[in-house]
Amino acid sequence: MIDPKDPKLGDIQPDDENASEHVRFSRRLFLGSGAALMGAAGMGLGGSLVSTPAKAAEGHNAVALAPGELDEYYGFWSGGHSGEVRILGVPSMRELMRIPVFNIDSATGWGLTNESKEVLNHKPWLTGDCHHPHMSMTDGKYDGKYVFINDKANSRVARIRCDIMKTDKITEIPNVQAIHGLRVQKVPYTKYVFANAEYRIPHPNDGTGMDAIDKYYTMFSAVDAESMKVAFQVIVDGNLDNTDADYSGKYAFSTCYNTEGAVDLAGSMRLERDHVVIFNIERIEAAIKAGNYQTLPGADDVPVVDGRTGSELTAYVPVPKNPHGMNTAPDGRYAVANGKLSPTVTVLDIQKFDDLFDGKLQPRDVVAAEVEVGLGPLHTAFDNRGNAYTTLFIDSQICKWNLENAIKAYQGEQVEYIVQKLDVHYQPGHNHTTMGETRDADGKWLISLCKFSKDRFLPCGPLHAENDQLIDISGDEMKLVHDGPTYAEPHDCMLVHRSKVKPAKLWTRDDPYFAKTAEMAKQDGVTLEKDNKVIRDGNKVRVYMTSVAPAYGMDRFTVKQGDEVTVVITNLDQIEDVTHGFCVVNHGVQMEIGPQQTASITFKAEQPGVHWYYCNWFCHALHMEMRGRMIVEKA
Amino acid sequence: MIDPKDPKLGDIQPDDENASEHVRFSRRLFLGSGAALMGAAGMGLGGSLVSTPAKAAEGHNAVALAPGELDEYYGFWSGGHSGEVRILGVPSMRELMRIPVFNIDSATGWGLTNESKEVLNHKPWLTGDCHHPHMSMTDGKYDGKYVFINDKANSRVARIRCDIMKTDKITEIPNVQAIHGLRVQKVPYTKYVFANAEYRIPHPNDGTGMDAIDKYYTMFSAVDAESMKVAFQVIVDGNLDNTDADYSGKYAFSTCYNTEGAVDLAGSMRLERDHVVIFNIERIEAAIKAGNYQTLPGADDVPVVDGRTGSELTAYVPVPKNPHGMNTAPDGRYAVANGKLSPTVTVLDIQKFDDLFDGKLQPRDVVAAEVEVGLGPLHTAFDNRGNAYTTLFIDSQICKWNLENAIKAYQGEQVEYIVQKLDVHYQPGHNHTTMGETRDADGKWLISLCKFSKDRFLPCGPLHAENDQLIDISGDEMKLVHDGPTYAEPHDCMLVHRSKVKPAKLWTRDDPYFAKTAEMAKQDGVTLEKDNKVIRDGNKVRVYMTSVAPAYGMDRFTVKQGDEVTVVITNLDQIEDVTHGFCVVNHGVQMEIGPQQTASITFKAEQPGVHWYYCNWFCHALHMEMRGRMIVEKA
Repeated sequence: MIDPKDPKLGDIQPDDENASEHVRFSRRLFLGSGAALMGAAGMGLGGSLVSTPAKAAEGHNAVALAPGELDEYYGFWSGGHSGEVRILGVPSMRELMRIPVFNIDSATGWGLTNESKEVLNHKPWLTGDCHHPHMSMTDGKYDGKYVFINDKANSRVARIRCDIMKTDKITEIPNVQAIHGLRVQKVPYTKYVFANAEYRIPHPNDGTGMDAIDKYYTMFSAVDAESMKVAFQVIVDGNLDNTDADYSGKYAFSTCYNTEGAVDLAGSMRLERDHVVIFNIERIEAAIKAGNYQTLPGADDVPVVDGRTGSELTAYVPVPKNPHGMNTAPDGRYAVANGKLSPTVTVLDIQKFDDLFDGKLQPRDVVAAEVEVGLGPLHTAFDNRGNAYTTLFIDSQICKWNLENAIKAYQGEQVEYIVQKLDVHYQPGHNHTTMGETRDADGKWLISLCKFSKDRFLPCGPLHAENDQLIDISGDEMKLVHDGPTYAEPHDCMLVHRSKVKPAKLWTRDDPYFAKTAEMAKQDGVTLEKDNKVIRDGNKVRVYMTSVAPAYGMDRFTVKQGDEVTVVITNLDQIEDVTHGFCVVNHGVQMEIGPQQTASITFKAEQPGVHWYYCNWFCHALHMEMRGRMIVEKA
Repeated sequence: MIDPKDPKLGDIQPDDENASEHVRFSRRLFLGSGAALMGAAGMGLGGSLVSTPAKAAEGHNAVALAPGELDEYYGFWSGGHSGEVRILGVPSMRELMRIPVFNIDSATGWGLTNESKEVLNHKPWLTGDCHHPHMSMTDGKYDGKYVFINDKANSRVARIRCDIMKTDKITEIPNVQAIHGLRVQKVPYTKYVFANAEYRIPHPNDGTGMDAIDKYYTMFSAVDAESMKVAFQVIVDGNLDNTDADYSGKYAFSTCYNTEGAVDLAGSMRLERDHVVIFNIERIEAAIKAGNYQTLPGADDVPVVDGRTGSELTAYVPVPKNPHGMNTAPDGRYAVANGKLSPTVTVLDIQKFDDLFDGKLQPRDVVAAEVEVGLGPLHTAFDNRGNAYTTLFIDSQICKWNLENAIKAYQGEQVEYIVQKLDVHYQPGHNHTTMGETRDADGKWLISLCKFSKDRFLPCGPLHAENDQLIDISGDEMKLVHDGPTYAEPHDCMLVHRSKVKPAKLWTRDDPYFAKTAEMAKQDGVTLEKDNKVIRDGNKVRVYMTSVAPAYGMDRFTVKQGDEVTVVITNLDQIEDVTHGFCVVNHGVQMEIGPQQTASITFKAEQPGVHWYYCNWFCHALHMEMRGRMIVEKA
């Protein structure tokens, strides 16, 4: 048996016949063609703690929902590199809605309408890579106001309004590349959204200093949740990975890999340890207030402080190599850094952080436990009974372990902290429990977001679904109850009780979402709720129309070849669920207009002739007949 | 009681207290603010035939799938105006895969990679509006080779290869606007894909003749399923709606509305009847072979024949106003036109079509039945026991009726043809039975694609999910077993037994999908499976890389500011499910590279400096460390 406190590990035995097929597969996969970058001897595989299949246990939840029954939880799901956010119902695991964020969506016209282009800052990017959706909180509890999500691909943070369930702000984070870890300040309320930029780059990144690799750095950013402006950035050592915040409002903390500051894989594996960096929010705010900051070229309004080793604004806690997930327990006292290349989790005692910053403790003194849970621990979720649930990427398992017992074991007591290991299918990354990142953790459900799904679903070609598995944790024993195939790539999720979310059923006519368009109409002397008018302004034409099922306010309008045409539609229907669309054939023009919404889209009328437009959101028995002609006169 | 043969109807009573809430809601919705465009007195509402809720019945299917159990059917789902196709497992109703078609997808790089841009014909459109997915057939049975799908928004037809489950061809249909109805030739095999263009336009549509509305026309197109070239087009009267083909290979038939040739709603409601147009495929082929066709400007290679009233190539069968769905029964003898604005379905006897075309019969002589089923019949599906299942949009019901009994009733016999009515939730459009559009109809499951879902799911803002409901039809009585929320807007689907589909698990190195890229590599003297090289060609730079988890073949490459960079990646991993990605931060560059696949993407390197690229498809425990630097030197 390996010393649980020792992050250095022995060799994996990829062909151990006692391990299940998928575990051996995982190990082979991880090890590649025999070149072991790291490894560990068989740790707790088989034996009574591994339940395959899970036995029935007392006190379990009801799983199946009959038609018409509502789910108990909103699941907000990252859509990964699809660039979207998804809402799933839990426990049914049905996709209830997609929210376009960093993607192009032709159903709603996301990326096409003027309103969405404004949110997207008129950028030409057609891509995004979402990872971590998190809801705004007040006093450590979800407040149902916003969901925030990062874009690693293009270094952005977006905000979704939970009343209309649309993205309403996107901020490009300056000075950095690849926003990865993202969490919110929990207490006293979500003033900041914390965003980790992963990659170290030269500063300025203008083609100079590209060989001075030791001068590269990356930064931790705090985004103001209301204004969505970057409040401050903190220079750090290493590559930032995941982050979380505490329940006092004083600290955020991030895992970092590549303490070496290397630019290649081998170079970033040289040292024995990487670190968790703790950010002292109060001190950072005070430093900025005192003017102790710099700004970087191209972002004059963003204060940057230096939080590299030795700064009083941060503390660096050494942990085993390449730590990954960072998760605060709902008790508010502990936070867990997950070992990834080490089979351990490191438990930090947040109550000791004040003393650490005051110089009364050494960094490793805040480690309450560092215990072995299995191979490839990536993320940890929590119930309301003192248990933690850690995904083991390489073992393809969830390890349920008891936090207090782990601390006792680390202190040398002879106590078993591992409660159960459950096979998942396969390669789990993030996991999440119902309400588990808040004070309201309720210990009912656990989601394991598995990266691979080989043999779990009907084959659909070389590309496979991910597998988001639903696990009942309400009883003494974890029980796998549902395999949920999902498209590329639900990176993370969070599960919010339905009592916390109060979406609107109709748009309101004064919604700021289309305020700019309403202002334009006002300038044009148009009453959106009534007028059907064409306004010409040089070679710019604005077509204002209403819609009431099954007809637009105009069944034709005329423009000239070469005109820039803006169509503004106001949906006068007041019945819930009666959404209209607007599509111009062969023009790449499509959008959604919800009940009582105004939406607009601008395009060039380049081809003379008759071009039909139609409603593309089924609205009425005469929906197909809801159409009209754009007549483009020859120039 | 209304005469079932009379398509003229009385008034709806929208506030009939005997009707269920959603039926009254539907009717109010349909009628708008009191102006009745059409109507019908309460037809069979309530009474013993309406089962709410459905009673338990004998012989039903098992519904729930335990984790790891596979579905029995592939459901190919239209993604509507999302522009994609989805694969759902049935009966679990889980989304197993998304197939990008007419959309932009940043996960796979669809619309971004060179290979996908080639398929998309290098068009700038970011939109699509899919309706009708249909699989290729041999002898009236699915052959598992292709799935075809239309794009109404931009008048296209696409083909999906069912081995790799990727779109491999997209054809823009010339001379027309808005491809709507789409089906395949069933017998002897799918030589043609039949595609209805909906809107009448001037010809040529160049800004002349825009006021000569009576000269507008639209066309029926046949696309060669292998070459994906348009084989012929047929000019018709009216607006083409849906289509289907027979089981002899001789005929296709389409519903048409707007026989009046009007351009406004009122104008298209003037006459008593619209029509079904029957296409005589043999005669059309013979006419073209004999040179009896024209071509239209801009599409010299597409033969166009005139099939308007009076042509010997077509026959026009008058049916009640605004017919919608067109569905051939698996017995091969009958096809059904669904009434939409009439509460009737019209059953056509295909065996009489030869005599109709030979002048031995009048058009209405081929009508075997025209019977009442309920309000707003849109589409009909079939089991293998002689029953038909018609969606009633306004009643929000499925009407199960017996085909033979309907014919007897139409002939005057006192026989009940309606078997059961089942409430669905709400406003069903298309429906589909397992294998029901083929000779293999098996009568096990029915999907009802409901347009509205008010109150059926947790609210997610003004936009609502659709509701694709699963109905067990294996017993004597239909039984609603699952509510399936779906994103905008599954217009139609088809359900294929898993025995018919054999997808590939890995790519093969000689796949034509990336043949053009392989040819480019050959010209550059590069062996894709081995080389990691940068080839400069003026200001064009081609970067060839391999990938093996967890590393690219190069952890950096250097280009100059202003270069056009093409990155070509070959994924050497041979393990099923190990897909890699390639993403360049802040460049809008992302793509999928499946195991053994080659993929490429081209972009401008405009910003000097260090720009990280990374793997965005989770592949390995060191996935996050799979990254490298694009070094852009100052120009």
